Amino acid sequence: MRALNLTLLTDLYELTMMQGYFKNPTDQVVVFDAFYRKNPCDGGYAIAAGLEQIIEYIRDLHFSPDDIDYLRSLKIFDTDFLEYLRGFHFTGDIYAIPEGTVIFPREPLVKVIAPVMEAQLIETALLNILNHQSLIATKASRVVYAAKGDGIMEFGLRRAQGPDAGIYGARAAMIGGCIGTSNVLTGQMFNVPVKGTHAHSWIMSFPDEYTAFKAYARQYPDACILLVDTYDVLDSGVPNAIRVFREMQEEGITLKGYGIRIDSGDLAYLSKQAYKMLAEAGFGDAIISASSDLDEYLIDSLKAQGAKINSWGVGTNLITSNGHPAFGGVYKLAAIKEKDDEDFAPKIKLSENVEKVTNPGNKTVYRIYDKATGKIRADLICLADETFDTGKDMIIFDPMATWKKTKISGGTYTLRELLVPVFLKGECVYTSPSVMEIRDICTKEKKTLWSETMRLVNPQEVYVDLSDKLYAIKSRLLEEMGQAAIE
Amino acid sequence: MRALNLTLLTDLYELTMMQGYFKNPTDQVVVFDAFYRKNPCDGGYAIAAGLEQIIEYIRDLHFSPDDIDYLRSLKIFDTDFLEYLRGFHFTGDIYAIPEGTVIFPREPLVKVIAPVMEAQLIETALLNILNHQSLIATKASRVVYAAKGDGIMEFGLRRAQGPDAGIYGARAAMIGGCIGTSNVLTGQMFNVPVKGTHAHSWIMSFPDEYTAFKAYARQYPDACILLVDTYDVLDSGVPNAIRVFREMQEEGITLKGYGIRIDSGDLAYLSKQAYKMLAEAGFGDAIISASSDLDEYLIDSLKAQGAKINSWGVGTNLITSNGHPAFGGVYKLAAIKEKDDEDFAPKIKLSENVEKVTNPGNKTVYRIYDKATGKIRADLICLADETFDTGKDMIIFDPMATWKKTKISGGTYTLRELLVPVFLKGECVYTSPSVMEIRDICTKEKKTLWSETMRLVNPQEVYVDLSDKLYAIKSRLLEEMGQAAIE
Repeated sequence: MRALNLTLLTDLYELTMMQGYFKNPTDQVVVFDAFYRKNPCDGGYAIAAGLEQIIEYIRDLHFSPDDIDYLRSLKIFDTDFLEYLRGFHFTGDIYAIPEGTVIFPREPLVKVIAPVMEAQLIETALLNILNHQSLIATKASRVVYAAKGDGIMEFGLRRAQGPDAGIYGARAAMIGGCIGTSNVLTGQMFNVPVKGTHAHSWIMSFPDEYTAFKAYARQYPDACILLVDTYDVLDSGVPNAIRVFREMQEEGITLKGYGIRIDSGDLAYLSKQAYKMLAEAGFGDAIISASSDLDEYLIDSLKAQGAKINSWGVGTNLITSNGHPAFGGVYKLAAIKEKDDEDFAPKIKLSENVEKVTNPGNKTVYRIYDKATGKIRADLICLADETFDTGKDMIIFDPMATWKKTKISGGTYTLRELLVPVFLKGECVYTSPSVMEIRDICTKEKKTLWSETMRLVNPQEVYVDLSDKLYAIKSRLLEEMGQAAIE
Repeated sequence: MRALNLTLLTDLYELTMMQGYFKNPTDQVVVFDAFYRKNPCDGGYAIAAGLEQIIEYIRDLHFSPDDIDYLRSLKIFDTDFLEYLRGFHFTGDIYAIPEGTVIFPREPLVKVIAPVMEAQLIETALLNILNHQSLIATKASRVVYAAKGDGIMEFGLRRAQGPDAGIYGARAAMIGGCIGTSNVLTGQMFNVPVKGTHAHSWIMSFPDEYTAFKAYARQYPDACILLVDTYDVLDSGVPNAIRVFREMQEEGITLKGYGIRIDSGDLAYLSKQAYKMLAEAGFGDAIISASSDLDEYLIDSLKAQGAKINSWGVGTNLITSNGHPAFGGVYKLAAIKEKDDEDFAPKIKLSENVEKVTNPGNKTVYRIYDKATGKIRADLICLADETFDTGKDMIIFDPMATWKKTKISGGTYTLRELLVPVFLKGECVYTSPSVMEIRDICTKEKKTLWSETMRLVNPQEVYVDLSDKLYAIKSRLLEEMGQAAIE
């Protein structure tokens, strides 16, 4: 049976650590940051998604009697700890970058401030949800970009990595800019457009292709996209489709949203030939839809070759983010406040892998926009209590090569804090927009990117800078640990 | 909220086609085959998985009042069709290859025989489940193979493509041969071993690494794996771990299942150095566990370099099947029986892409084993009612190059029909084994493969042949369609 309660959707080590903290009592309040290190598909940006489901997960957190019984059966948890779990709920603060926002590596996407046991438990599920949906929203955004204004339909449910990957993947794909999904359950759950016509089996279950087309056209004159590649696209499919369109016209039925779909073969060649045949028959306005192992690169290439396709159904490669199937988000301890302390003490994690060294402290992120164009100049990671005067010059520096500095003149830029409160003292203070509203937000967000950053291959990176204060803390911690500052 | 009822987990076109059939009444009973075309990761085989969840899905199929209301709101479905859906349930037959079985391209993994509307509706969810779990079971089997007997732990939940990808991905990974998962919910749902110790945050929340190790060791003396790379593996992590192991010994506490985990850096170098230090301190039997972007190729390479790792935690690349994130299973109409017909009429789907041409007819699959070794000689796809005498010679031929024939002498082989009944007339007649039982089945199944087929790179393909009868039908249909036989 499907699990409704996701409280045990966590790595065992979260629970063994929780018991460890329970047995070594502490009043520590900690700050954890969820962030990622590398844009999917070597792109220039990513899209934040999944917050609505993270909120649901946090609100519903509770250990049921069955959960407690199961944990007891593992014989590693003591009765007093299991009793504590019985009454567990989340009491901390969560800040997050809203869904649909353009995001960049290393900046905190979600910040959790909570007693250490609570902050630890939620790591795995929070990352699971954030990683999955941000990945697919990002991939969808790339595919939409490649299509240069043509509609992209999400068709991947059958190849998704399980039911949720289909359901929430389609949700994320809508956020990333798709115009609809084939997934009916996602349509029902999130009130997004559902699309689809018929399969090869429809054609094959009729005596011939013409009869099958005709039956379909009569049933759905308002959305009559005929799949033309069951037998032979140009010798059979397109001629039969034209015959049916013509007969429908003759019967006085106005065709709306009509056309063909090609699901195999060389899509550039076939679409151009099909267009010629359709146009010569007076159906030059027909939709020519394509679907067959598409991704952003193939769509880009087909468009460059002049393919006469104006509607794209993208399945496997979108719903699995083929080529880069994991977002790689991590959740790292950044600061600790002991019971009697006033301030958070910053914490850093070193690593043999330089890029895995974390940014310490209780932080936030500001986006620096160019006032004249509205485009993003850079993002600034700083301490949560830092303030900035946009009337004054700001010096930002390349985070890896700190000698490369740029001055942003006072008055030429605006600032926006990206992290917003989602939970305060365990209470949810945030209302998620609808998916179609988030999709609109995302469309506007993408307009804040320079085209150089949108490019599919080898894009220009957007700088994500550290404030002077944060940089000083990081350098000090690294020096204390006997290492040179690396960013 | 999480969806419990997966009936709408389907592509819209399944429903538009269903209404099409409803409006063009037919008594057709059809045969659909689910099969795949290419082994994941260019491997020599795959592992079937997901049947238990397919059974649950079929048993629970029903359109709730909310589902009907939602479909009505789309304004493409008529009242009579919606009324029909209200009473819908599955009444057909389903045959499937049991979970854990070694499988090859082009053979039917699931065969559905049902009225066309029922067979059509279930396509999407059936493929979704089958594709996902078979993919991950196959990837896990490859990783387990690379580890040459060392235990593989599934650690990927946080990078999985949503909750189900974590839950059922871990289930499939266990079937493929993992010894445990970090995913507590999967442990609870499927009664499989759960594993895990602590994260970097545990170390960082104590004043120093030694104190953190000591607290952990006291709490979990029976499963004390210390993560040694928070600061510096060889200068800090391993010496502190040794100090703690020694102190525990001195306190008279017997350490069981103790050791270290390395999560970054060069795993070959660090593990060899760490082993040396541990062995010199008298802890040569310590577990040395590694986790850090592992997959079958890296494990193979690390082992070839003599890495002293004997336990592997594999996350992202396993749970997403990185490099090949979709199984590519399809569901194709193979035969139709009209109301008054006695037999099924075979159906074929042509395609511009040669490898997409389907095998027609109501079929089954036999596995041909070598009697002496128990290894697989070939698989044979044939008509469901064909019988074979294992006392007689069998001629099998390369499915692509049909002039390449092999004679299997009578008496030297055994046959096993791979498809077993799962539903008959809508009633489930199959009981799924437990996941650990399926894992045992899979272990035995892998022993029926020649080592040449198990190889990670460029393995020998196992022949999947067509029977003479089936080949004749396929050739006839292709000729009727004016095309030459291609397999």
